[in-house]
Amino acid sequence: MRYMGLIDRYRDLLPVNEKTPALTLHEGNTPLIRADRLSEELQLDLYFKFEGMNPTGSFKDRGMVMAVAKAMEEGSRTIMCASTGNTSAAAAAYAARGGLACVVLIPNGNIALGKLAQAYAYGATVLAIDGNFDQALDIVRDITSKHPITLVNSVNPYRLEGQKTAAFEIVDALGNAPDYLAIPVGNAGNISAYWKGFKEYREAGRSTSVPKMIGFQAAGASPLVAGKPFPNPETVATAIRIGNPASWDLAVAAHTESEGGVWAVTDEEILEAYRTIAAKEGVFAEPASAASIAGVMKRRREGALPAGSQVVCVLTGHGLKDPNIAIKTVAAEPVVIPATEDAVLAAIASAEAARG
Amino acid sequence: MRYMGLIDRYRDLLPVNEKTPALTLHEGNTPLIRADRLSEELQLDLYFKFEGMNPTGSFKDRGMVMAVAKAMEEGSRTIMCASTGNTSAAAAAYAARGGLACVVLIPNGNIALGKLAQAYAYGATVLAIDGNFDQALDIVRDITSKHPITLVNSVNPYRLEGQKTAAFEIVDALGNAPDYLAIPVGNAGNISAYWKGFKEYREAGRSTSVPKMIGFQAAGASPLVAGKPFPNPETVATAIRIGNPASWDLAVAAHTESEGGVWAVTDEEILEAYRTIAAKEGVFAEPASAASIAGVMKRRREGALPAGSQVVCVLTGHGLKDPNIAIKTVAAEPVVIPATEDAVLAAIASAEAARG
Repeated sequence: MRYMGLIDRYRDLLPVNEKTPALTLHEGNTPLIRADRLSEELQLDLYFKFEGMNPTGSFKDRGMVMAVAKAMEEGSRTIMCASTGNTSAAAAAYAARGGLACVVLIPNGNIALGKLAQAYAYGATVLAIDGNFDQALDIVRDITSKHPITLVNSVNPYRLEGQKTAAFEIVDALGNAPDYLAIPVGNAGNISAYWKGFKEYREAGRSTSVPKMIGFQAAGASPLVAGKPFPNPETVATAIRIGNPASWDLAVAAHTESEGGVWAVTDEEILEAYRTIAAKEGVFAEPASAASIAGVMKRRREGALPAGSQVVCVLTGHGLKDPNIAIKTVAAEPVVIPATEDAVLAAIASAEAARG
Repeated sequence: MRYMGLIDRYRDLLPVNEKTPALTLHEGNTPLIRADRLSEELQLDLYFKFEGMNPTGSFKDRGMVMAVAKAMEEGSRTIMCASTGNTSAAAAAYAARGGLACVVLIPNGNIALGKLAQAYAYGATVLAIDGNFDQALDIVRDITSKHPITLVNSVNPYRLEGQKTAAFEIVDALGNAPDYLAIPVGNAGNISAYWKGFKEYREAGRSTSVPKMIGFQAAGASPLVAGKPFPNPETVATAIRIGNPASWDLAVAAHTESEGGVWAVTDEEILEAYRTIAAKEGVFAEPASAASIAGVMKRRREGALPAGSQVVCVLTGHGLKDPNIAIKTVAAEPVVIPATEDAVLAAIASAEAARG
């Protein structure tokens, strides 16, 4: 049976009906890759749910296909969001696919165009306001409450509905829920969506258990760990640089009900995990994604995760989303050598010696 | 049945045996996306085979998983290639996954680190020689012929074996071969691999027809169209900037036997197609990929493709591979406006008016 996207695949567990358009860019169906080397090192049965393999390169596509399909069903011609990153890329892509206009509001100043390259490519209208991100979001909320324009930021309830399908896929691949689901936590929508998905799948009789939900925030942006908002969140993992998560209560419910928890990992631990999974497993994810791996490594070292546990780490986005970080943290100017076989062989030998 | 990569899926039609390791990053199984809007505009039944959805973001993963698996089977501990782009990314990723060392040789001077970010991330050793690309390739050939190091440039025969599986997937998705297979042509390995795949699938009784193979080169790098090498190839589509294709004869055989052909498209036509598929279909591919779309649009306008034909365009890589081009060709400094609802509404209205 040909895979035709999330809405087609999980129709019976999504809020769709015969009027919902069959919108798809073939999102979802992302690989669950076993981390063979790390499993052995950590004595775990460790998997990566590689969400970077979605069409725009992040898990946001799952929620966005639902949000945009419902906007179309309701007759909306325009969608709108405040975002400087993965959300704007997903919104712009699905708007283009559905034939809707997409308006992206961003705060003015210090905008890295690279982060917006996708929104522009997919034809979105990008507006910078003289104000901060919260003001941008307020304007989006105001306008979308009064005009036939659909808000697609994470407060749109269909976003979590779409995102929960990643939990379904994990169960479908493993045959049941894993012992632990490790996940980076920023705005906290994704941990909430996974938990909803695991519970619904068990209710539907498609699994017999649910995992312990273990979330990881960057130390410089860890409001859920501290129990209070961070007014100036800072971390290299920009996709989880959030000081006051929109889905705070849902996230707390997820880790409490599941007997999991939320912990912080440092930027150094995140970058170490980021390098490790690329070099040891061949999986290149964006820095925020590596927070889940960094957390698992740390908790395992601390003895908090029993040996032999089955753990799925969610990798939220593709490493290509943020190539500058790769260049800054792992690249170097190449070694320049003469164009001779001997020089190349000597350089290989010395690289192999350095590798140990 | 859980998808476990190319070697698992198409084992019976690949040169593998019980000693070939089950290497995989879950490459292949890429979406065949119907281009609904363009199909209507062009009066075609048009599809995109979106190869940017492979693990490292390009079709090269298909060939590389085979080349590296065979290298492992043969006891090699190191692979080597001359490449500044997608090949080095794929080689480095599968080497990391398989636990092999990867050495990438590049010509010194004017190296964009962005193009090498992935190779570095996956832990490859990058060496720049004082010489050009051809010299780099010569050294790789010499060294790999004398030492237990495996060459994984496109002359490695397993590369085409892996790449042919994309043709299998197209037939599996459509139920038979399409009327036309449109594909960007640079080094000409991919058009040769698809043709091999379509023929083998028909021979195996899994399809009853083969497509006409229609290839498109960038005008500034169109040796197959001109019938002679281009000493200084130049095009914005860097992934097909090749002056003297390695698989020249195979490519000629593919388009001749299939009653297709090879034509040139200009950089302007390529960039126009690049913008069109992102903004109208929500698919963001690298510029070289858009050569196939540009060619189909042009041939259809010229009346060379009959209305109603079923056409599959191969999109070889993800747009995220080359975000700078997106920024240069589609992005602009965002419009800055006051942080008020009225100002935002006025800006939306003016954007909608401009859109027409």
